[in-house]
Amino acid sequence: MGEVSARLEDLPLRADLRGQKPYGAPQAPLPVALNVNENTHPVPAEVADDILDSIARALSDVNRYPDREFTALREGFADYLGHGLTRDEVWAANGSNEVLQHILQAFAGPGRTAFGFAPTYSMYPLLTRGTGAEWISGTRSEDYSVTADDAAAQIAHASPDVVFLCSPNNPTGTPLGLDVVEAAYEATDGIVIVDEAYFEFAPHDERSALTLLPGRERLVVSRTMSKAFAFAGARVGYMAADPALIDALRLVRLPYHLSALTQAAATAALRHAPTMLGMVDEIVAQRDRISATVEALGYTPHESWTNFVLFGGVADPAATWRGLYDQGVLIRDVGIPAHLRVTAGTADETTAFLDALASVGSAA
Amino acid sequence: MGEVSARLEDLPLRADLRGQKPYGAPQAPLPVALNVNENTHPVPAEVADDILDSIARALSDVNRYPDREFTALREGFADYLGHGLTRDEVWAANGSNEVLQHILQAFAGPGRTAFGFAPTYSMYPLLTRGTGAEWISGTRSEDYSVTADDAAAQIAHASPDVVFLCSPNNPTGTPLGLDVVEAAYEATDGIVIVDEAYFEFAPHDERSALTLLPGRERLVVSRTMSKAFAFAGARVGYMAADPALIDALRLVRLPYHLSALTQAAATAALRHAPTMLGMVDEIVAQRDRISATVEALGYTPHESWTNFVLFGGVADPAATWRGLYDQGVLIRDVGIPAHLRVTAGTADETTAFLDALASVGSAA
Repeated sequence: MGEVSARLEDLPLRADLRGQKPYGAPQAPLPVALNVNENTHPVPAEVADDILDSIARALSDVNRYPDREFTALREGFADYLGHGLTRDEVWAANGSNEVLQHILQAFAGPGRTAFGFAPTYSMYPLLTRGTGAEWISGTRSEDYSVTADDAAAQIAHASPDVVFLCSPNNPTGTPLGLDVVEAAYEATDGIVIVDEAYFEFAPHDERSALTLLPGRERLVVSRTMSKAFAFAGARVGYMAADPALIDALRLVRLPYHLSALTQAAATAALRHAPTMLGMVDEIVAQRDRISATVEALGYTPHESWTNFVLFGGVADPAATWRGLYDQGVLIRDVGIPAHLRVTAGTADETTAFLDALASVGSAA
Repeated sequence: MGEVSARLEDLPLRADLRGQKPYGAPQAPLPVALNVNENTHPVPAEVADDILDSIARALSDVNRYPDREFTALREGFADYLGHGLTRDEVWAANGSNEVLQHILQAFAGPGRTAFGFAPTYSMYPLLTRGTGAEWISGTRSEDYSVTADDAAAQIAHASPDVVFLCSPNNPTGTPLGLDVVEAAYEATDGIVIVDEAYFEFAPHDERSALTLLPGRERLVVSRTMSKAFAFAGARVGYMAADPALIDALRLVRLPYHLSALTQAAATAALRHAPTMLGMVDEIVAQRDRISATVEALGYTPHESWTNFVLFGGVADPAATWRGLYDQGVLIRDVGIPAHLRVTAGTADETTAFLDALASVGSAA
């Protein structure tokens, strides 16, 4: 408009937001991007074609508001999740962040608290504060694990309204036993969210917290299509819980929050779940290759049941990060001293990362 | 899961949500749906084809997170809005409801207030309370208009943090002069939002509040693609404001809130703005036909600069609504005594509504 712009400090911004910076990993157009735990395998062409056909049909009446109850999509998620779940036990939103936001709006918010074991997914405190609630940070043992007894004691002491259990944990990759979920649930009268965003990368015989849902009306199991499903760009998170808890989310969600295009795309992708998930085993193989190789290079990888590896023993994380960046490899400094995190990509991407890491010098 | 479900009252829901019902107009599959102010003309086939091409390209890397800054889309909106706006002065989200939510999260929220002249868009109070702020209701004169002096006096008295000015107003259709916007802005140190969701249906020579943006760093002008653009199913709202105000929204938006599919679809649709907006004149003609005909039937239509008509003189709105429903015509009871609201559809839909209305009996 050709005018001098105001400064943010000149505007009547909320006091709790003053001085904050927007969340977000750097988005840099590097050849090998292994920084945000995406699935680096594109959606297979035959699946993309079917998704596009579904979107074309949705476009024919995109002048109308979408199905506010996204019924077909909830049925698709119920079928995919199994465990006898029905559509009434399923919810979805624009990314699992929005799913979590809905839960916090209904069960936390001003005057209430949410709790998680740090270090954990950095959006939990941001989402919590964004809805006006207070964040309480619990602790993990040195290897980032949490025992059932310790979890119960910390939760009982904090007495939060909402508990986040990231299983397996981001950014550490750490598994979480179902005994911890059971103990956490018993230790609180609040909502317990088990965030299984990376569950598909866990060992195949591992039981999901979905098996704990019957009889636990305060338990939520959240998932995402961003990781195993290679659908980060489509922004689709989902969850399972008691139908009464789902009803509470209907009170806080924006009407028509899921577009007709999103509903069509996700429903179509779910029809191809076996194909969409076909890359998971290959990614797991690359993850294990990363762990073995960085260990051979003198670093200390943490056990991971996800599609990424957090490794310690990095003398100067910023320097190592920059050395990789200069070779076209983007990974993530998650703010844990002496650590870096890398996503398991394709075999070629993994090779590029490991070669670059070897070239920037050995561990501390 | 084969278990007896909990009841919502058994869950630790926030106290302020207890007893509430979810927002939403009934979604009924009737032949003539004129209840939610959609554009009832489908997107033209040649535009849909181009949109689909863009979505196909976006699907090729949908495994990656989308551009968090939706740069191409912001440029598209800036070009469409004109007035010398640049992408740094533009924001967008999943429907204008989410745009408004972002503003409230940044500038209202717990301990603050938002204000609007009732009756107005029913989501304003819901969005306000959903972010923890308090809603303050102002008043309109009998014909639903607001004068500059009255607006300034009410706003000065209420001293809100955010002011909503719906221009033209929903659900009444009432125009709002730019002098009211100027007076409202002078009367507060808070944010002033001019919601121009229906602006494209106003007389062609009417000036937008966009012309008032230079030098007013607390002013927001919001728009939507749901109405004139026939894109309700795609869920795209947008706004223009000072770049500093836009920066504040980056602090509260969920990262990657706009999917790659949404960005691709909306950017493509904007390339075809003249075609997409081609139905506006026809809709305006049907709107004026509705006003003239319901008046001839003895009802009292209110002046409308939108794609709908609110008409009074309805002796029993529930009975009239039901009489139309039984003939396959869905309109809206917006809760104003003795009034009903109908969307201007195609010529055939408008005829179906007017014939059905004539058949259910005359006005009170």
